[in-house]
Amino acid sequence: MTRTLILLRHGQSEWNERNLFTGWVDVRLSEQGRDEARRGGELLAESGILPDVLHTSLLSRAIQTADIALEAADRLWIPVTRSWRLNERHYGALQGKDKAQTLEEFGPEQFQLWRRSFDVPPPPLDDASEFSQVNDPRYAGIDGEVPRTESLKLVIDRLLPYWADAIVPDLEAGKTVLVTAHGNSLRGLVKHLDGISDGDIAELNIPTGIPLVYELDENNVPTGPGRYLDPEAAAAGAAAVANQGKK
Amino acid sequence: MTRTLILLRHGQSEWNERNLFTGWVDVRLSEQGRDEARRGGELLAESGILPDVLHTSLLSRAIQTADIALEAADRLWIPVTRSWRLNERHYGALQGKDKAQTLEEFGPEQFQLWRRSFDVPPPPLDDASEFSQVNDPRYAGIDGEVPRTESLKLVIDRLLPYWADAIVPDLEAGKTVLVTAHGNSLRGLVKHLDGISDGDIAELNIPTGIPLVYELDENNVPTGPGRYLDPEAAAAGAAAVANQGKK
Repeated sequence: MTRTLILLRHGQSEWNERNLFTGWVDVRLSEQGRDEARRGGELLAESGILPDVLHTSLLSRAIQTADIALEAADRLWIPVTRSWRLNERHYGALQGKDKAQTLEEFGPEQFQLWRRSFDVPPPPLDDASEFSQVNDPRYAGIDGEVPRTESLKLVIDRLLPYWADAIVPDLEAGKTVLVTAHGNSLRGLVKHLDGISDGDIAELNIPTGIPLVYELDENNVPTGPGRYLDPEAAAAGAAAVANQGKK
Repeated sequence: MTRTLILLRHGQSEWNERNLFTGWVDVRLSEQGRDEARRGGELLAESGILPDVLHTSLLSRAIQTADIALEAADRLWIPVTRSWRLNERHYGALQGKDKAQTLEEFGPEQFQLWRRSFDVPPPPLDDASEFSQVNDPRYAGIDGEVPRTESLKLVIDRLLPYWADAIVPDLEAGKTVLVTAHGNSLRGLVKHLDGISDGDIAELNIPTGIPLVYELDENNVPTGPGRYLDPEAAAAGAAAVANQGKK
């Protein structure tokens, strides 16, 4: 008997739409993002892969995605746990900056290093910045300090304890688990699940709004590749993510 | 230092709009109900009484109300616990029936007895009914049997353990608690809080969509009467509830 894990990246946010680096800034879904979430929920309903339990980040766009998708799948009532450990990567001093402008200002090499290197974080965000989260009450209870910047490696370091302590127990209890989160926290989780190397993870792009379903064995190792519930849309979406920031 | 409890009755549902007995039937909010929920969240934001934690029933209309209100109050990220013990009263064989038609068929005395008596439940709902919840997966994990009908007394019997075991610990931890639930589960909770007699509770009507705020002492006893964040709208709303079913 395999275990089922569903990963769902939030749909377009107001800042995706404006092509800004977002990170931990708590922007909302755009109308298109809400439509994507609804479609994600419909895909769950059509496939009959219905989550028993939900895990989300503490960011509104992931929570909105879950709420809308579960409404479409008629599963609003499932238990939910939220954690900052599922948050998007903190983008440091890039938070709030225009992606195309950053690309132009720093050049394609530095830009790709910040976006896709495994362990090079952007410069830290100043605590006085309007885009800082150091005084946000939602993070009052987190272990340790609120991040000022993160690499993908740092995301994985804070993500994996949550995977082991909160998500795996639900899987082991036989529950179908839905995780609604972000481009980089989900890349980190997929890297772990699929055993992708630190180098190769740069090439992985996860499309928005399309459920990605894994079957896991008793050691929580995938029995095969993750499967998008709408493979054509997923391929197109991944290509769009890869091209972000390009003109 | 007092403790703060916020009660919020869900806004108009698709069946309130059609004047049908709903109970445990999982209907959604109407557009008006969504507007009421948004207004409820705005009242929280304007008053500065911001919940730290949410408790809801397992019914979509209470969950939608919480999601919409918390979005308006910018508190989507607070932890949430859901329980069937906060569900609306199970209306037995009345579920799915037209209120005005029921009033006409059974007369005002029987009608008021079913709606407002403390311990007389309506006839039980047949398990084969399309409005039964005996096979609903959301109730697979509840202690004991799925109800076939309930009086207000039975609602209170299943509600108070949740109050003591789940809500009070949050209050004692210093958290401002939001409970989004239903006309009768909230009447039951208010009866307990305000020490209203079995007879007098018939007269209590709770309006939809308007936060009702209690300050509680260290024994979780109110330090004064509950306070609606929009008293004028609350008075009008309570009168409307009292008149339901009348032509």
